Amino acid sequence: MERRPGGRSARVRDAVRQATLAELGEHGYSGLTVESVAIRSGVHKTTVYRRWGSVEGLIADALELAREEPWPMPDTGSLQDDLRGIVRLVQSGFADPVAGPISTAFVAAAVLSGDAARSLHDFFTARHEQAAVVVRRAVERGELPPDTDGAEVIRMAVAPIYYRLFVTHEPVTERDAERAADAAAAAARAGVIRVV
Amino acid sequence: MERRPGGRSARVRDAVRQATLAELGEHGYSGLTVESVAIRSGVHKTTVYRRWGSVEGLIADALELAREEPWPMPDTGSLQDDLRGIVRLVQSGFADPVAGPISTAFVAAAVLSGDAARSLHDFFTARHEQAAVVVRRAVERGELPPDTDGAEVIRMAVAPIYYRLFVTHEPVTERDAERAADAAAAAARAGVIRVV
Repeated sequence: MERRPGGRSARVRDAVRQATLAELGEHGYSGLTVESVAIRSGVHKTTVYRRWGSVEGLIADALELAREEPWPMPDTGSLQDDLRGIVRLVQSGFADPVAGPISTAFVAAAVLSGDAARSLHDFFTARHEQAAVVVRRAVERGELPPDTDGAEVIRMAVAPIYYRLFVTHEPVTERDAERAADAAAAAARAGVIRVV
Repeated sequence: MERRPGGRSARVRDAVRQATLAELGEHGYSGLTVESVAIRSGVHKTTVYRRWGSVEGLIADALELAREEPWPMPDTGSLQDDLRGIVRLVQSGFADPVAGPISTAFVAAAVLSGDAARSLHDFFTARHEQAAVVVRRAVERGELPPDTDGAEVIRMAVAPIYYRLFVTHEPVTERDAERAADAAAAAARAGVIRVV
């Protein structure tokens, strides 16, 4: 059996990150404690405190794990359908009984903690970059003006979902997701979402 | 001097609501306590507890005060310019050193408390209704299809501002506000924001 340097350390980190996600999913941000993550992960409490420092440190590290997860981008040949795929993925993610509460806990944590806000900011920067590929392809197909702002098209497509979930506290349906995607696609085609 | 029935009670309520807003502005949701509102308003703590119950009750009542505030709607003769006026008002409101922290505290409170979420939901329902007049006028002018969903146009215009402020934690400029308004106007004109 091979012994890799850092193998044990990497396993400890993975156990703590998985335990953080599981605790967030079950108890939300306000229920997350270093103690509960230590118990769930089987890693000693003093180790968790030494390496992660606090609940905010745990969240930042768990978000890094989430950021590394592959986010499959649709490639339907139409901007509108690609955006529909992306926004429906966001909507169904929040509706999911396991993933939904975890994502909700991340947003709540960032509203309350500057550290978590910085982690979430980096997470979304990466997500916008990834998703902007569907806008780039639409530009290449001649569907959109060349100076269309890809990240901004993505923001406009997903923003109404987050607005309903975290600001107005209204329900979100699949039809709402489609309408938001269609609106972003129409605005991009009209040439009003350009790089400033 | 006239003595109106309920005059004292109304003055007490007003003092408590004003104190709640001032405390939210200075210390945010996590710093709001029944005690600090009692001290600031000059109303006895037991009275505040009896009539408002808790921090959530104070927030719900302060939101009702905010909901009653006049929200002047632009009437420029163009949907795009009307929407720009509305979204710039939202953006500049959050940038305001006095009003900004209060609005931020309301959103944070609603992320953490179901009672505050219900109050904020009602607040935004009223705001969407008020603002939808600019969409109705655009329909009457023949700028938009008759079955355009007014509240949804407003949601789409303002959502990117809230998304940056409370989800991705990105800065928001006046140009971002204009671009969001222009996108919602273009999508409405394209006929993709209809009543479902």
